[in-house]
Amino acid sequence: MLRRMPTVRVDLGERSYDVLVEAGLLARAGELIREAGLSGKAAVISDVNVARFHGKALMDSLDAAGFKPTLHEVPAGEASKSLGHVETLCSAMAAAGHDRRSIVVALGGGVVGDLAGFVAAVFYRGIPFVQIPTTIVAQVDSSVGGKTGVNLKEGKNLLGAFHQPARVIVDPQVLATLPGREYREGFAEVIKHAAIRDGAMLADIAALDPATREVPADLIARNIAIKARIVEADELETKGIRALLNLGHTIGHGIEAAVPYGEMLHGEAISLGLRAALFLSRRHAGLAAEPADAIVGLLEKFGLPLVLDPAITTAQVLHKMGRDKKFEAGKIRFVLLGAPGDAYLSDQVTSADLEEAIEDLRKPLGSA
Amino acid sequence: MLRRMPTVRVDLGERSYDVLVEAGLLARAGELIREAGLSGKAAVISDVNVARFHGKALMDSLDAAGFKPTLHEVPAGEASKSLGHVETLCSAMAAAGHDRRSIVVALGGGVVGDLAGFVAAVFYRGIPFVQIPTTIVAQVDSSVGGKTGVNLKEGKNLLGAFHQPARVIVDPQVLATLPGREYREGFAEVIKHAAIRDGAMLADIAALDPATREVPADLIARNIAIKARIVEADELETKGIRALLNLGHTIGHGIEAAVPYGEMLHGEAISLGLRAALFLSRRHAGLAAEPADAIVGLLEKFGLPLVLDPAITTAQVLHKMGRDKKFEAGKIRFVLLGAPGDAYLSDQVTSADLEEAIEDLRKPLGSA
Repeated sequence: MLRRMPTVRVDLGERSYDVLVEAGLLARAGELIREAGLSGKAAVISDVNVARFHGKALMDSLDAAGFKPTLHEVPAGEASKSLGHVETLCSAMAAAGHDRRSIVVALGGGVVGDLAGFVAAVFYRGIPFVQIPTTIVAQVDSSVGGKTGVNLKEGKNLLGAFHQPARVIVDPQVLATLPGREYREGFAEVIKHAAIRDGAMLADIAALDPATREVPADLIARNIAIKARIVEADELETKGIRALLNLGHTIGHGIEAAVPYGEMLHGEAISLGLRAALFLSRRHAGLAAEPADAIVGLLEKFGLPLVLDPAITTAQVLHKMGRDKKFEAGKIRFVLLGAPGDAYLSDQVTSADLEEAIEDLRKPLGSA
Repeated sequence: MLRRMPTVRVDLGERSYDVLVEAGLLARAGELIREAGLSGKAAVISDVNVARFHGKALMDSLDAAGFKPTLHEVPAGEASKSLGHVETLCSAMAAAGHDRRSIVVALGGGVVGDLAGFVAAVFYRGIPFVQIPTTIVAQVDSSVGGKTGVNLKEGKNLLGAFHQPARVIVDPQVLATLPGREYREGFAEVIKHAAIRDGAMLADIAALDPATREVPADLIARNIAIKARIVEADELETKGIRALLNLGHTIGHGIEAAVPYGEMLHGEAISLGLRAALFLSRRHAGLAAEPADAIVGLLEKFGLPLVLDPAITTAQVLHKMGRDKKFEAGKIRFVLLGAPGDAYLSDQVTSADLEEAIEDLRKPLGSA
């Protein structure tokens, strides 16, 4: 009997694709990629840590399905998102006989997905690619939506392309090998999704026990569906809808950039950014105290940081946020929350507001 | 009275744009770019040779139209089509305050157009760009159609993106500064266009006197229209129509790559490639001797090479063509000419045919 596995369809006309979510899919990747209509040689791009755990299973599966795969590893970490690595990877792919008929398979977290997606976007002016995300953040968020990119020394993701994957294969089993800190980090984005579009999901997240490190497949699929609906409504981020996913990211990015490189995970910075966004939503969006406290409480439950390190000055954060540039026309577009599930873009937040919100992050929780 | 200047429309749905062709347009570029609905800061990308002749006129015009332009120069020559130059250019643009609201203006020949177009395709995941081509090849061919790209050491144009310009501004006056060899080179592509799609244009080209270095604006516009109709029918080169523009390029590219770097211009290699393609069209496509000789005669009239340097072996050319790869499935897609204006893709050309066609290039003209 044919059983339809849990699938989220991302409907983007001729660029539509399926996100498959089920334990054990990694070992079946080859057949699932062929089922999506893809053929040719496969270039698997991964990082050394992920490849050690999951590389062999994927290569065996692709080999069995006739994809004649080659494996291309980059160091783990944000520094691999560079044009230098793009050149090294593409040269290695060309030398290994890849051409316009090949496909790229990204096996890893957000860094690998962004980098491999960019490689796929530019190799022979664009070849198909498949995402196999291996972190919570990548599974619930970054593997869906087609944003690819690399960094310049002047800033993150300044270069990139919109290039939608042809299929996304999500295997919750691979999360078992995640370090605890990365498990907790992932929930910053899950809680963000709930806050933006699915207030009821907050209760479901509250029912989880972080000590078990469980990530239910249906929770992942629900998050992907939130992301998919937003991407469908605003694929190229030109309509102010996709920007809602930046809740907590304006100040969060500033904090992430102000901290010495490698000390803070992205989700940890976003946790602080969310607390600041809730502070500003209380002030400007009429957000009630109870739901604001509930969201902060969830972040706390997952062990995410909520109080800013005193060593980081408010001026540093504002500088890294590029406040001067952002307020060029006197206004900033900032994502506020009127109630759980109801995020919107506002131009009411002032430069002084941002400063106060960052200062507020220095207070212990519950001291408002 | 409003006068409509000579315009070729490239109709690609929401990616449609106008190609304007008229003497003196360079000095009016600012207003013409604004007229296309573009605004923001302009990053002008050029090479040192072209910028010396035409940079000031363009910068003054952009400045007067409020584009706050910055000028970014690369060395002249194919070596500038690298990811290293992409990174240098994008970093300089970011440092100069360019962002997602900026535009790129490409001022130069094919190398600058391909490089600047790629920068525009990836900077902030894609910003608008304008082509101002300054060579014959760029004016009649490469500035139209949205192909952008850079080279890897493994091959030319292995990385790139399809990114259509928002406007193309063609000023035949700038051709006056071209060296004679580049003037003659340009006619290889003009003659190719006539051979593919406009047999009657061969007589008009024959009526020109190469010694005058004249390039009539209406001849340029006619060539752009040929390219535009082909691009409209097959924007992403997936339907076998755009591939017709490769007449003479299969063997021509092999010769270009076999010659020591910098000794032969692209159009010179294509002249040899066209002679070889005509030889194979006589054999497989029923092309009559008279039109084949007429096309070769035109190439000769413009001083283009038609006899292969004995220092280049046939094996070298075949190797650089990647014959082994091209015949992977036992067949090659080769553009043949049944009659002037009637090109088509054929799978009749064999590996042995290619070898004979290259050998035939060693004979003096008229010895068949």
